[in-house]
Amino acid sequence: MGELDKLEFVKPADIERRSFEIISKELGDKCLDARNELVVKRVIHTTADFDYADNLVFSENATAIGVQALKAGCSIVTDTQMAASGINKRVLARFGGQVHNFMQDADVAAEARERGVTRSAVCMERAAALNKPLIYVIGNAPTALVRLYEMLQEGAMSFPPQLIVGVPVGFVNVVESKELICNLDVPHIVARGRKGGSNVAAAICNALLYLASGDARE
Amino acid sequence: MGELDKLEFVKPADIERRSFEIISKELGDKCLDARNELVVKRVIHTTADFDYADNLVFSENATAIGVQALKAGCSIVTDTQMAASGINKRVLARFGGQVHNFMQDADVAAEARERGVTRSAVCMERAAALNKPLIYVIGNAPTALVRLYEMLQEGAMSFPPQLIVGVPVGFVNVVESKELICNLDVPHIVARGRKGGSNVAAAICNALLYLASGDARE
Repeated sequence: MGELDKLEFVKPADIERRSFEIISKELGDKCLDARNELVVKRVIHTTADFDYADNLVFSENATAIGVQALKAGCSIVTDTQMAASGINKRVLARFGGQVHNFMQDADVAAEARERGVTRSAVCMERAAALNKPLIYVIGNAPTALVRLYEMLQEGAMSFPPQLIVGVPVGFVNVVESKELICNLDVPHIVARGRKGGSNVAAAICNALLYLASGDARE
Repeated sequence: MGELDKLEFVKPADIERRSFEIISKELGDKCLDARNELVVKRVIHTTADFDYADNLVFSENATAIGVQALKAGCSIVTDTQMAASGINKRVLARFGGQVHNFMQDADVAAEARERGVTRSAVCMERAAALNKPLIYVIGNAPTALVRLYEMLQEGAMSFPPQLIVGVPVGFVNVVESKELICNLDVPHIVARGRKGGSNVAAAICNALLYLASGDARE
């Protein structure tokens, strides 16, 4: 069993704390904005990718705005089932929020096909039609961000997003869709460039939820 | 709407094809093993991270072995709900397989706490106790890989894994746990180093499923 001796012994309950120690150490003297630091570190924890120390862009007070919204019972809408699945719904429910996701709705697929748009774009319209305060969390589809941008430009949303988490990943219009959001006067957390994903989206939501609970982690 | 003019017009149905074209172009003359190429490209598609062109390690014929297993109706066990959520279960079901995940079982948490091990380690034991051929897909917990390694070394599995997808992410024992699997005589696809995740795990499964269906994508 010699190979197993190479493992560091860390109790299950301590693995996350130890991981954050390593992340902090490796970030070294890199200057993170203290207001957003836990969000950035949780994304690095989720991806093992230190690029996010540079990629993540926060509008003024975005973290505090997201935390306040969650505390007030704000719900979250996601563009993928996978992001919905990764969000800590137990903590969210404690504040009164829930996760909405319309991607599996049969009529969303039909409508998207008929109109020649993506399902994700239709899902953003469904979310807006809920007519309630929401945090919009986009981990996959740039077309969802573009549709959000259009609706905001058209003044078509009775409840503009409390916060947009704009972290789609990919190669077609991903960079551009995120720049659209960065230029809007709406609170946002955006992963600039091509990188992102449902895991990053969920990690950002969970960081906000743990800050809202006053826990580093639960 | 001048900002929107910067977007490339791509029909929804063509976005993925266009993304793969860009990935192939940017890989340039980098030599990927043709047998595993579609798996590597799908992981890059999911992460926008070209590191995976170097990080992904395939044991001999791992892709073909995974594809054959899926075609024969092999089921998949994952260490996170998020990976389970990202796998194309419609295609999997067509071959007769399903996704198992034990992380939410109440007695798993209780047993893990009592024994001082992680829930993920207990989940691997639950999977082994199903006594059937399985593809083990680990996107989060190195402790799941370590427990798999131990069970295999102890000869404690009536059905050794058809394939191990070992792509946990993180900082504590992640690198080491993946090396344990690389040294085993069991078919495996491993993301060497710290990177990986539930999204990478699901992407690898989906690449195998699309190869099994004879489709580049569905």
